[in-house]
Amino acid sequence: MDGAECLIRTLTENGIGICFMNPGTSEMRFVNALDRVPAMRGVLCLFEGVCAGAADGYGRILGKPAATLLHLGPGLANGLCNFHNARKARTPVVSIVGEHTRRHLRYDAPLSADIEAFARTVSEHVRVAREPAGLGREVSAAIAAAIAPPGQVATLIVPADVSWLEAGGLGPAVEPACRPLPARESIGQAARLLGTPGTALLLGGTALNVRAVNAAARIAARTGAQVFADRNAPRMVWGRRGFLPQLMPYFPEAALEALSGVRHMLLVESQAPVSFFGYPETPSYLLSEECPVGVLAARSEDGTAALEALAEECGASGGAAVANPCPQTEPADGPLTLEAMGNALAALLPENAIVSDETVSSQAVIVERLRAAAPFERLPVTGGAIGQGLPVAMGAACAAPDRKVVALEADGSGMYTLQALWTMARERLDVVTVIFANRRYRILEVEMRRAGVETPGPAARAMMDIGGPDLDWVRLAEGQGVPATRAATVREFRAQFRAAVDARGPALIEAVL
Amino acid sequence: MDGAECLIRTLTENGIGICFMNPGTSEMRFVNALDRVPAMRGVLCLFEGVCAGAADGYGRILGKPAATLLHLGPGLANGLCNFHNARKARTPVVSIVGEHTRRHLRYDAPLSADIEAFARTVSEHVRVAREPAGLGREVSAAIAAAIAPPGQVATLIVPADVSWLEAGGLGPAVEPACRPLPARESIGQAARLLGTPGTALLLGGTALNVRAVNAAARIAARTGAQVFADRNAPRMVWGRRGFLPQLMPYFPEAALEALSGVRHMLLVESQAPVSFFGYPETPSYLLSEECPVGVLAARSEDGTAALEALAEECGASGGAAVANPCPQTEPADGPLTLEAMGNALAALLPENAIVSDETVSSQAVIVERLRAAAPFERLPVTGGAIGQGLPVAMGAACAAPDRKVVALEADGSGMYTLQALWTMARERLDVVTVIFANRRYRILEVEMRRAGVETPGPAARAMMDIGGPDLDWVRLAEGQGVPATRAATVREFRAQFRAAVDARGPALIEAVL
Repeated sequence: MDGAECLIRTLTENGIGICFMNPGTSEMRFVNALDRVPAMRGVLCLFEGVCAGAADGYGRILGKPAATLLHLGPGLANGLCNFHNARKARTPVVSIVGEHTRRHLRYDAPLSADIEAFARTVSEHVRVAREPAGLGREVSAAIAAAIAPPGQVATLIVPADVSWLEAGGLGPAVEPACRPLPARESIGQAARLLGTPGTALLLGGTALNVRAVNAAARIAARTGAQVFADRNAPRMVWGRRGFLPQLMPYFPEAALEALSGVRHMLLVESQAPVSFFGYPETPSYLLSEECPVGVLAARSEDGTAALEALAEECGASGGAAVANPCPQTEPADGPLTLEAMGNALAALLPENAIVSDETVSSQAVIVERLRAAAPFERLPVTGGAIGQGLPVAMGAACAAPDRKVVALEADGSGMYTLQALWTMARERLDVVTVIFANRRYRILEVEMRRAGVETPGPAARAMMDIGGPDLDWVRLAEGQGVPATRAATVREFRAQFRAAVDARGPALIEAVL
Repeated sequence: MDGAECLIRTLTENGIGICFMNPGTSEMRFVNALDRVPAMRGVLCLFEGVCAGAADGYGRILGKPAATLLHLGPGLANGLCNFHNARKARTPVVSIVGEHTRRHLRYDAPLSADIEAFARTVSEHVRVAREPAGLGREVSAAIAAAIAPPGQVATLIVPADVSWLEAGGLGPAVEPACRPLPARESIGQAARLLGTPGTALLLGGTALNVRAVNAAARIAARTGAQVFADRNAPRMVWGRRGFLPQLMPYFPEAALEALSGVRHMLLVESQAPVSFFGYPETPSYLLSEECPVGVLAARSEDGTAALEALAEECGASGGAAVANPCPQTEPADGPLTLEAMGNALAALLPENAIVSDETVSSQAVIVERLRAAAPFERLPVTGGAIGQGLPVAMGAACAAPDRKVVALEADGSGMYTLQALWTMARERLDVVTVIFANRRYRILEVEMRRAGVETPGPAARAMMDIGGPDLDWVRLAEGQGVPATRAATVREFRAQFRAAVDARGPALIEAVL
């Protein structure tokens, strides 16, 4: 058994059965070994950022790692942006990076680079498999590091000769990771705090699932506590499901207002709220300096169980009755506004869908309208690095082949990793992509105004304008094998979205705003 | 004058008049200042890898830096792959990276990352502009570091508030960099060596221009020395121009054979040859361990002047008469083979064209046929990181608007940075892109055979097959505003290439192999 086979078998023996990859010469043994280990599914991506984002989407849905296989330092470099997002999401990923042969390393060949330095920007666990005999152990160590709560991108660098030489045995079985319940004491302390006015909960991490949000709803109903959600949490329930936490607003002015009544903040797998960017007139830290911040559950603890224990401790065992919004009725046709798109999506989104949301400047309107949709799960932006929406949708579809995945994607951010469409076509993944085509970096126009520039000059405007030429997303999708249509009216959008959702397999709709 | 304006003015005062950018919130002041400094041309790219590659292409042609402007750590991350190539090319680039405001840095906001760690993977010079008063000096220092021979990617990280606060004065004028001539002694030593049989020259760096190659030709004619070219040099003359050095072969077996008669190697802005990858049966180091290696000119020295001095020292002042190959005559039609494409390109390439060459597995055939083309300049792959061809062509076209630029691009590698096509369309750049569409990672099929696998199984084959679905490059180009055609026969290709070369502005031809 060569090193490559040992590597793959140690992965599959530990339940890792998918690898998003863009291999090169140093990874040929890994590729060749795929036929000997059918339990490993190789998924080819045409750009490494797609591999990294797909592993993030996969890990967010299943809570267990996918593997990625990238080629040397530059291949890893192309994955770093979406690994940054995975790092902020605390998604478990086993990142395998091929390296030159050990004896080749001393020479400055064209592709030589400091792979460990690249990897350390996104991974706490960075190891090199220096000996074939120890490869299996290193693979197990990477898996263990990846799944240790709260989860991380763990990197294992494998020299080409280590993968072609005879390996030692498989790595040991990795113990499943388990998030501990916080100490009984912090539950009791939190319960006492909730008796005082102005106490709020901020839910993040894995604690925005149905059980966690239901427990928070009971606590809110019983104690009057405000419940916030980290807007950059990796995964959250959404839609008309009784109770939803309040999303922390994006801009600091709105966040400060939302937090103005908070006298005590309790964190659940999250951190005290800070502004996304710093601005001249507003603070970066969004709570008053006097506001005490307590931790109900740390990021590595089980926030869901903690919320349930807290609800019980508060005597909040009954369900809270909350009125559900209904999808807005609206004219069946008209110009395609954001509001109309939000209403159409709310009406037509299938129950239990997964929505990868990278709508950027469109998000505030859309996410508000989607409160009226059938219950679904959102995969928000986590690290703020543009280009995660399509790969995350692609990976989520691999993780949940029986659920409809919808990618809500801005035209600007979609361009960073549009190659994800090809893998959707190749793997026949059930993903409906909606491009919000406003033909500009609209978020930057907003930020330019916030910087005090009411009317930017032509040179500045050109840097925020991605029309001229307009991107034609129908051609960009068809060019990669994904059927696509364009919608310019409400009627067209509704008909196209309904048809795409009713069919199986990838489809793209360019919604011209 | 705010920091952003000080930054841009210090660049333009030092002759840097173009910035390839993909800005974000923290760079809004820079964008806004563009209208106040018309000497700076902002070129928007839809992906950061395009910015980095374009700056590389620009710098290779003009020998002076372009600036890039990227957004925080993840924006820089997307540029690292092509900055790796620029690093190996020793291309001068001033890489400006926006950062959070200084007081925002202490918080773990979503986009917070260790920008310096990202930058150090490709830059020796990494600085943070910590005070508005010192910003101008830091810009000058970055320019000086970028242009100091042999040239590098120099990184300056600029916090958002440093760009919006009142700046001090402009940075000081940067002295032009000058490559020193090697010591007289090494010229004399080299001349004496050339009297002994088996002495060879290996030219790289900037020493593959007309003057340098002509001097090498005279030396070869006079002394019988073999003249090799580093196949990964940033820029080289090519075509029917009297004398061409021998390109160092890609695979070690062929390189070992080419080098078998070499008893003494003299390096000119290059390094002793090593294999691109390491293999089980062949050495990484391609010279015999006994072969002495001398340095005629180090990478930071003036190899061209050194070669001319050496030619004079050898008494090799006359020109060498070398027969020029002629373009192959061949049937005007037939199936589109690589050989036929090479012949057509050799016949139709305009004189003094710039050819960005990322043909990967097609290269050996094409580059050989192009010996018969009218004299032109090739911009080869330098760092081996896939995805440089289109951005380098785009940047070269910005640098040389009066020359025809041709991008010879493989379909696999073209997909990494296809967003370069949009900027070609927006800026109406005179670039003809030829996609060698063989619908597979053919180089990996070759490498798989080299790894001893004659018939890979279906799982392995799938990881090297980028057909199914086929990429439709006509749609991918048109979707970004670049007119495109498809050629499946010799007649079609010749007609389309001729028409594209005769017209001005971007065009793409998908050549189906």
